[in-house]
Amino acid sequence: MLYKIDFEPLGRRGHCPDDKSLLDCARQLGIGILSVCGGQGKCHSCKVQVLTGTVSEPTSSEQDAFSSQELEDGYRLACQTYPLSDCKLRVPSESMTTLQRTQVEGVEVAVRPKPTVHAYHVQLPTPSLSDLRGDAERMLETLHHQHQIRCSHIDIDVLRDISPQLRSWKWQAQASVRNNEVVALGPWPSRQLGLAVDLGTTKIASYLVDLSNGQTLAAKAVMNPQISYGEDVINRIYQVVKSPADGTRLQQLAVEAVNRLIVELCETADAEAEKIVEAVIVGNTAMHHLLLRLPVNQLAYSPFVLAVRDAMNIKSRDIGLHIAPGAYVHLLPNIAGFVGADHVAMLLAIEATQAKGVVIALDIGTNTEVSLLDDDKITSVSCASGPAFEGGHIKDGMRAASGAIERLRVTDNLIQYQTIDGMPPIGLCGSGVLDAMAQLYLVGVLDKGGRMTQNHPRVRVRKKQREFILVSEKEQEGRPAITITQQDIRELQLAKGAIRTGIQVLLETTGHSEEEIDQVVIAGAFGTYIDVASAVTIGMLPSLPLTRFRQVGNAAGMGAKLALISRSKRTEAQAIASRVHYIELATAANFNPSFVQASYLGRYRITHGKRKEID
Amino acid sequence: MLYKIDFEPLGRRGHCPDDKSLLDCARQLGIGILSVCGGQGKCHSCKVQVLTGTVSEPTSSEQDAFSSQELEDGYRLACQTYPLSDCKLRVPSESMTTLQRTQVEGVEVAVRPKPTVHAYHVQLPTPSLSDLRGDAERMLETLHHQHQIRCSHIDIDVLRDISPQLRSWKWQAQASVRNNEVVALGPWPSRQLGLAVDLGTTKIASYLVDLSNGQTLAAKAVMNPQISYGEDVINRIYQVVKSPADGTRLQQLAVEAVNRLIVELCETADAEAEKIVEAVIVGNTAMHHLLLRLPVNQLAYSPFVLAVRDAMNIKSRDIGLHIAPGAYVHLLPNIAGFVGADHVAMLLAIEATQAKGVVIALDIGTNTEVSLLDDDKITSVSCASGPAFEGGHIKDGMRAASGAIERLRVTDNLIQYQTIDGMPPIGLCGSGVLDAMAQLYLVGVLDKGGRMTQNHPRVRVRKKQREFILVSEKEQEGRPAITITQQDIRELQLAKGAIRTGIQVLLETTGHSEEEIDQVVIAGAFGTYIDVASAVTIGMLPSLPLTRFRQVGNAAGMGAKLALISRSKRTEAQAIASRVHYIELATAANFNPSFVQASYLGRYRITHGKRKEID
Repeated sequence: MLYKIDFEPLGRRGHCPDDKSLLDCARQLGIGILSVCGGQGKCHSCKVQVLTGTVSEPTSSEQDAFSSQELEDGYRLACQTYPLSDCKLRVPSESMTTLQRTQVEGVEVAVRPKPTVHAYHVQLPTPSLSDLRGDAERMLETLHHQHQIRCSHIDIDVLRDISPQLRSWKWQAQASVRNNEVVALGPWPSRQLGLAVDLGTTKIASYLVDLSNGQTLAAKAVMNPQISYGEDVINRIYQVVKSPADGTRLQQLAVEAVNRLIVELCETADAEAEKIVEAVIVGNTAMHHLLLRLPVNQLAYSPFVLAVRDAMNIKSRDIGLHIAPGAYVHLLPNIAGFVGADHVAMLLAIEATQAKGVVIALDIGTNTEVSLLDDDKITSVSCASGPAFEGGHIKDGMRAASGAIERLRVTDNLIQYQTIDGMPPIGLCGSGVLDAMAQLYLVGVLDKGGRMTQNHPRVRVRKKQREFILVSEKEQEGRPAITITQQDIRELQLAKGAIRTGIQVLLETTGHSEEEIDQVVIAGAFGTYIDVASAVTIGMLPSLPLTRFRQVGNAAGMGAKLALISRSKRTEAQAIASRVHYIELATAANFNPSFVQASYLGRYRITHGKRKEID
Repeated sequence: MLYKIDFEPLGRRGHCPDDKSLLDCARQLGIGILSVCGGQGKCHSCKVQVLTGTVSEPTSSEQDAFSSQELEDGYRLACQTYPLSDCKLRVPSESMTTLQRTQVEGVEVAVRPKPTVHAYHVQLPTPSLSDLRGDAERMLETLHHQHQIRCSHIDIDVLRDISPQLRSWKWQAQASVRNNEVVALGPWPSRQLGLAVDLGTTKIASYLVDLSNGQTLAAKAVMNPQISYGEDVINRIYQVVKSPADGTRLQQLAVEAVNRLIVELCETADAEAEKIVEAVIVGNTAMHHLLLRLPVNQLAYSPFVLAVRDAMNIKSRDIGLHIAPGAYVHLLPNIAGFVGADHVAMLLAIEATQAKGVVIALDIGTNTEVSLLDDDKITSVSCASGPAFEGGHIKDGMRAASGAIERLRVTDNLIQYQTIDGMPPIGLCGSGVLDAMAQLYLVGVLDKGGRMTQNHPRVRVRKKQREFILVSEKEQEGRPAITITQQDIRELQLAKGAIRTGIQVLLETTGHSEEEIDQVVIAGAFGTYIDVASAVTIGMLPSLPLTRFRQVGNAAGMGAKLALISRSKRTEAQAIASRVHYIELATAANFNPSFVQASYLGRYRITHGKRKEID
């Protein structure tokens, strides 16, 4: 009996016979799980967590390796465990021989730090029988006296420590003031830190920032653990509609992941989480609502209405974030539908308000947001591009981790490729998939409609469909071949067609032609690593001179950082959000004909739903 | 072997031999514990909770009656349990044959309701593809459009339900607005309720109020369960100093008690706790700090400094109060030392700012706060009067419950008394103790110095001290006699001397003589029930015409209600608190000589530490 095993967070899938252990299956697929003792159950290094599916009973080695709570949570040794059904596993990072590529860098905008939270040095008079003011009033009045700052109150959680702290600091303190509130106290001098988070559907990127100079002290990213409740936003929302209690669970998963990132960031920067006096979190509207446990049912049906659109300031304790107890979390404003605060952050980072000419700005992900900037007008759509570019729904797809093919060229029979970290190939990440599709089109294996020819020595038929062998079993030295199937091509056509359609709808709504586009700004992890020429070749992006494309990395994360260190950037974000004209793609008049045309491969222009090929 | 058994919350103590059950001991003392089956362990009606001390192992009846958690918490059947040491028991109200007198009424001041939270009817436009505003923005903008109310935000906990609620209410809602925030939403029309709480050291009084008309819908009181951590504020503070974790426990106890009161108030008024959109809580400074889990260590040593003096507004969820999730709790301002928000509330209720002439206002309790009002000046002190007037430290003292002697007259050999609910006498509550002391002084059993004569047929010697038999064993039909001992008199002299000293220090500080006092306002449960003539006879209060005394009941609770229904009363409270001149009694120059004089019995005046008797 063969079972399908899904290895998360790599996103790599394969089949495993029931007489092979999960470790054997991983090896078969080339996934690097640690196994110091060689699979004897002695070293306990090959830990995995079974998320779904049935597996064999724990062996005595596993009883030794795990607590009963861990066993209940699905923790197992891969070498001791045999599948009894299709399974989804999580491979913890400590069990991996090589680490996943996480991408946190992006454009940097020079901005003079002027954060919402400001630190003041306060030297308080000592209480006496003739000065019996309360500790809180003493602090507030001294702040006013020494700095002309009039605060109305001190956060209740700060007050819960104020008396012993002021005494142990000998009446000298640093007060962190936010608007009219004291949100943190520390000994003088203390670091004032901030946290910026880009909460993506697939990945969470985080940044620890020194608020005094805007410097990034550490940056970390992890996979979004909500993935076990659905790969894309629609599936996670449906999950909460079906089972409202999962809303709480999804929130916890996101918050726990961010809390773990905070611990790691602080370790790297030798900092304390209690010094983080402000956080900014951005995400698409579903991530935003799920993080705050806002209702999402109304986001599941048209008209897709947000519970909250505007920027929010909430106490970190109200979502359980472990930073300074009195600190706030600032959520940048959303736009509408599925165009959320992460897109606003991206527009902030690329300085959308100062853009010249016609600019297309897109953040490619499981959900792709596209904006067209034209003078001071911004028009936005959201396209459900799906998980194909993150390795989902693609037979040998995987996320951007060691051993993923990220670049690929086909010359006749010769396949040349480059893998992440130069490791033996185990699958294709998004940029590799995109290259493969473009190359197969260029060498004629795929026609304009995406149909795969059978007249190529590397094309074979398996399970009643054609597939192109990128790396054969022989080249793999016995491990499974890496192929791209006709079905994969269809998935990719849907994904890239959705993005191209979004661009077309924006152009037609604003009355511009493709030639008038002065710049295409591509943000997001996938967008950073793609070969733009391949994206143009398959018709995902309009055919324009390559100099007009700009890949900006994790611009959403950069925007979150800007909003963290600059009050005026927050104001700008609110201005951007309220200026955007949002188009509901499904209801756009020109959506359907465009979509059909946009799924074609090759270089072409679409005008009024008609496709015209170029050269 | 005889053990001392303390029955809480009655405050009645007695001795029990180790071969008698706790039920027998209660019967012996006349305490009415239910016992339907007559002590066979079958009916489970005589439940008690052992708070401290060691008792016999649970019998099989008790194993049946209680869960293992309950047994662990000290729950036992009184008929099955035998003491193995001195014990402190709690008798739950459901196990009592008669209920304790709880006193919640007080002066009522007519005030036009204008609460901090106001309700608005909102009729929202339905979302459509051409109106995709978020639900929050739709609410805020409609409020502005329909009522010219500009709110900045909606509480996060309100937002967590907003989308399904607005849809189920068909886009018609009631918004509860507090300053610039929406703190609750309900269907239109909904009741808007408020909660006022007087958190006393011994008793918690609570009021459920209709905010639209200021009407009190229900009033309830319970004993403060923190009592098991110390009878007075000093002991509770020391407990937290010694064992900081107890700070959390003391907070929980207070919050749980208030949460239970909320449930009972809502049952009585047929209301829902989620409709309570605002709460006002007053208490002395220790109760205030312990409720909020503010630091108290600095309150344990001179100079006694508060963590927070000013009025506070905190989210109900930040202390775990179960009212509307977005509601605020307002804490009236404290004054200083141990003069807290309850005294401010009392001054508010008696309209201190409009008082004419020289007024002494005192709230007698375990801690007694006294203010002298003189034109627009207010001078305040706090006196540690101790628990004697609540039955503590008095051999046969008890709280004001069924069977307590509350009035008493002595004529030669004849003792006449009145008990609460006309039940057979089981002890003396505060007003009874006060009467006894005054009567014994008047008939010559006590001299001015408080010494008890031995030349009275009802005076006997027990355990090497004289005691006066109020009710003999014979009159008690075999139950223990009720007596007042020389030691009791000494305790009472300390208590009443502290109060009189407070008054004297205020008079001397402000340059007034006793004769100039135009009115003495007496608040608090004990103060309501005392015979003022007795209080004057023993020199607790100055000798003035009885028409100058005014007993106003639970004025602190009434003040909390005023602050609940009227914004302007809150402003007035803040003005009162900041206007008060506070005197630290222990450091007042005239404290010690006054205190010695003030412990004398009889009618006299004290001037500059000298006592002068009046006829």
